Parts: sequence; structure tokens; C-alpha cells
Amino acid sequence: MGGALEPTTTARAGDVVRLPPGSRDVLPQEARELRAISDGLRGVFEAAGFGEVITPTLEYSDVLARGVLGNPSPTYRLIDDRGAWLELRSDMTVPLARVAATRFHGHDEPLRFWYTQTAFRPVPALQGRSREVQQCGVELFGVPGYGGDREVLGLAARSLDATGLPDARIVVGDARLSATVLESAGVDAEAITAAHDALFAGDLVTLEGILLEAGLTEDRVRALGALLRTRGDASVLDAHADAFGTPGRELAETLSSLTTSEKERVIVDIGLVRDLDYYSGLVFEVVHPAIGEPIGGGGRYDGLVGKFGDDRPAVGFALNVDAVHRAQMLGATA
Amino acid sequence: MGGALEPTTTARAGDVVRLPPGSRDVLPQEARELRAISDGLRGVFEAAGFGEVITPTLEYSDVLARGVLGNPSPTYRLIDDRGAWLELRSDMTVPLARVAATRFHGHDEPLRFWYTQTAFRPVPALQGRSREVQQCGVELFGVPGYGGDREVLGLAARSLDATGLPDARIVVGDARLSATVLESAGVDAEAITAAHDALFAGDLVTLEGILLEAGLTEDRVRALGALLRTRGDASVLDAHADAFGTPGRELAETLSSLTTSEKERVIVDIGLVRDLDYYSGLVFEVVHPAIGEPIGGGGRYDGLVGKFGDDRPAVGFALNVDAVHRAQMLGATA
Repeated sequence: MGGALEPTTTARAGDVVRLPPGSRDVLPQEARELRAISDGLRGVFEAAGFGEVITPTLEYSDVLARGVLGNPSPTYRLIDDRGAWLELRSDMTVPLARVAATRFHGHDEPLRFWYTQTAFRPVPALQGRSREVQQCGVELFGVPGYGGDREVLGLAARSLDATGLPDARIVVGDARLSATVLESAGVDAEAITAAHDALFAGDLVTLEGILLEAGLTEDRVRALGALLRTRGDASVLDAHADAFGTPGRELAETLSSLTTSEKERVIVDIGLVRDLDYYSGLVFEVVHPAIGEPIGGGGRYDGLVGKFGDDRPAVGFALNVDAVHRAQMLGATA
Repeated sequence: MGGALEPTTTARAGDVVRLPPGSRDVLPQEARELRAISDGLRGVFEAAGFGEVITPTLEYSDVLARGVLGNPSPTYRLIDDRGAWLELRSDMTVPLARVAATRFHGHDEPLRFWYTQTAFRPVPALQGRSREVQQCGVELFGVPGYGGDREVLGLAARSLDATGLPDARIVVGDARLSATVLESAGVDAEAITAAHDALFAGDLVTLEGILLEAGLTEDRVRALGALLRTRGDASVLDAHADAFGTPGRELAETLSSLTTSEKERVIVDIGLVRDLDYYSGLVFEVVHPAIGEPIGGGGRYDGLVGKFGDDRPAVGFALNVDAVHRAQMLGATA
């Protein structure tokens, strides 16, 4: 087959038969490599007792909107034949939380689900981002705190082993950590929210401005800014244990239970803030030195399943299969 | 895992958190069975030298519309951030024809592609049909006539062996056959088109009315009606070889080249008409006695790739993975 399947053109021939920006065709050689990644992850997930779940690509907008706790992300919406708004799923966590709450209502054993599905994100032209993202991940329902966090972090580390990415790291924090730090410094709730947004935007100038306005001294602001930018191994949680409070203690406990090889994957980031508002505890991003954005991520979202009528703790993560593939390619040539 | 993953509810809990009609969640036990089907088919396709291709779920409507030779099927459309119409793909043959024409422009070796993807079909409420259909199939580009037809029909037969459906059959015809029969009986082109539509609708009363109006005697109409309803093994093509003309001779040649076990899968249907207008020769439907509609189908579509700017012969088929699964379940309990 090989030679016969080399494409003659690297992009669409001409502009007449074109694809939407951020979309592409995957040809056999790359498809084989992508499938090796998702097959490897499937092996890790199934060996750990997770079962595959498949949800519809199109759901009612008002159902998916229950999973949006803060600002909704841009999504693709359309009107069906009965005038109802449908939406192309923009992540897999919300649909799987819906499955846990509705199809396993009142179920008291842990639920372990994995998936490999496409999520859809409208992207402005020329930004070079993907409209259609193949996500391969897990959701663990019904295991609170430390036990669930430890299981999912360990699974994330083993997933990176399975995809052959020695340089990938898991940057770990807690969604409550920055607020706890600022609270213990006497910053009020409103300023904490603004500081959180500045941290997410990586805008440290604005962050310092907010803290000065909140009445802190320049020295204190500088110290807090440094604290929130702290990255390192688990020992960084010991240095200022008072300021890190309960989230810091819980994260330290989770990390101490990882195996040595799992620990080697982990970097603690005190100021880590993720882009989805449903995270309630552990948060993490999977990063690779060759790729400019996270290749995966996850965390705990204990408040989300209850939005669909059956409250229970939940934690999960997903890898972006295309980004893992790019990391494999770039890592191999580096 | 087993017991812990039994759902507590067979449908969505209440009507508040609901799914669009024709959509559903697939839970782990069924997902495992569906994956066994698609893995089995992938094994058959890759062993035959086919390479996987993945195309975007969303494409420009005007690009997909090039593949519509007759009446367009209903599709899901939406407007992107730049005001362009996008469409959720409603089959895989048109996108793969686009890939062949644009990414392998001027390529003169055969191209062998397989896919396992979701196609989207708006369905009126309460009809019990699926909105999202997982299709697993192949497209073979650049092998005209007999050689390509024989390869794809053989692959379809082996796919049914791989999915363990001893009772499934491949109902085979030729898109030109009914027109050839009617032409040789002196029916004019306009009446042939109307007769074709009546045949597709399975409306034999209308068919006979059209032929009577076209000036044929009642006896002749009855004989033609019987001929177009003829089903049987390849020998039915010998009985009226004159009326079946070139399409009949080509189909007989294709069928004679199949292996004995492949032949046992095949039923010839002189009047077979498929629902897509791009078929130009061989057509077939995969049927199972326990399932009320075809579980798959395919055929030759030599005119389609040229619509994307690089003319070449093409033939392919796909199985509906959900329908294959239902046939497995019902076949096992029958």
C-alpha cells in the first residue's frame, strides 16, 4: 500500500473544494498513528476497570446548559425540525455527568467510564486552532476526595507512559488554592474573583494591581504574586502549608500516595486555574515542551452531576489525541 | 465491573433531562459489543489493504452539495462565524470522493480507504429512526467495472462472516438494470424515470399504471412487472439475458467470479433501486431477516469523484454498526 497512498497534494486542490478553517482530512498513515494512541489509551482505561460510553453528538442546548456553571463557551447550535435548539457537544464531561445522573440514578457504587469522541469548538478563521477535537478520557463518579483524585492522576500518568511521551508532565493544582491563599492574606471575595480571572489570563500586572487596590502593601503583594507563581515538586506545598489550608493538605496527601514513576510526571503549580468553571478541587493540565498549549487535562467537579438531578462526587481527565500525536512527532525529531 | 454497571433506569430519568428523538446513550456493555463489530470490520478492511481515512464532521454545504446528483436528502445545517453554511455529513461516500479527488489529484494507482464514522440524518419525532448512524465501510477508487465490483462484493461478504451473521444476505442489482429492461420493451425515457421512482417506493400499482399509460398491453405490463420483481441466484440473469443487456452481462460476470461462500451470501434482485442518485452500475443492500431495513449497502458511483475535479471510477459499501448489532442480538435469540 505505502507508496500508493502518498497524497499528491498537501492541502485541498484549489480553493473551490475547501474545508472550513480548523478542519482537515486525516489520511491513512496519520490515521494509523492516531488509532495507535487511542487504542493504547483504551487498553490503559479498560485494564483499570473503565467501560466505554458513547453519547450523542447533538444534544438539546438547554440540557447541556445545565452543565455550564459560569460563562458558556461558544458552541455550534442549530434548530431541529420541531423548533428546538440542538448543540454540538463542546466537551465530554457534561454529557457523561448527564449519563451518570440519569441512567444510573441513585446508583451507589463507583462508576468508571471512558470515551473517545469528538468535541466541537467554533474557531475564528486564521487562528490555527482545531474545530473538531478527538478527546480520549475517563470520568470516575462516586469516589470522593483523595481516593478518586489519586486514581485519576495515576491513570493520567500511566496514559502518558502508554503513548510514549517521556517529556510530558502533569501540572497539578487545586481550583480552591489561589482563593485560599488570598483569603488567608485578608483579600475580600470580590477582589479574589477578579484576581482569579487575572491568574487565568496569566496577567500578573493586573493581578498585582487588584491586590494593591484591596489594601495590601507592596511587599505583601510581591510575596503573594511569587507564591501564586510557585511551581515545583510536592515539597512546595510544605513551605507555606498555612496559606494553602485544606486544599494544600489534600493535594499533598494525594501526591504522597502516587508511585515513584507517577510522581516523576507531576509538577505542582499553586496558581493553576483551568478554563472550565465546574472544577471544585484537584485540577491538572498535561503539558509537553514541544506543544504550546496543554495536550490534556482534568480535575474534580463535585457539583456538576447534581445539576442533572443526582448529586455525587466526580473526577476525570482527557487527552487531546491530535495534540498527543503532534507531541510524539515533535518529540521524536527533537 | 459487570454488576456495578447495570443502569438503574432504561431511559432518561424524567422528561427534563432528555435526548433528541432518535438519539441515545450507549452504555459499557453495548459499547463493548459495538466496538467488537467495528474492530472486526477494521481487521477485514486492513487485511485487504485498505487504509483508514477520517474526514471532518462539519463541511461547507456548497462543497457537499457537489455530491448530490438528484434530490438532496434532509441535512443538519448551521451558519459559522463568517456567515458560511456548514453541514453535518449525511453519508461518508461524498466526503471520501472529495478526499480522493483533492488530496490524491491525478493519482493513477487504486486508492483503498476505509472509515468508521458517524453520519447525521434529521429524523421526524416518533419514527423510531436514528439521527446518528455509525457507518463502517470502504471506498475503492480507480478500479473500474468487474474488477472493483468483485473486490468490494467479496469484501462485503467477508465482513458479514467477521460479524457472525450467517443469515445476512447481499441483495445485488445494477442501477441501470430496470431502465435497460424498460427500454428494451420500448418504454420512453420520461416513463422510465417515473417507473424508477415507483420501483424505489415499492409501489407496483403505480408502476403498472405508468407502463399502461406508456402504451404497453396488459399482458406485457404484467410480464415486465414480474421481471422487475425477479429475485434469485445468479441464474435469473440468464433467463432473460436479452432484456438485461450490458448491465445484466456485467453483473453475471461479477457474480461468477465470487467464491462459493461469497456466492451463498448473494441474492440477485432485478428491480433493486437504491436511495442515492449517484450510483452508476452495481448496487447492493445488505439485509437480515430480523431487521426491517437494510443493515448496509453500497455500489458503484463512477460519476461522483469527477464532481470534485478529478474523474475516476469508484465503488464502495458500508455497514450500519448499530443495525449489525441489532441483527446479532435478534439472530441469537431467534
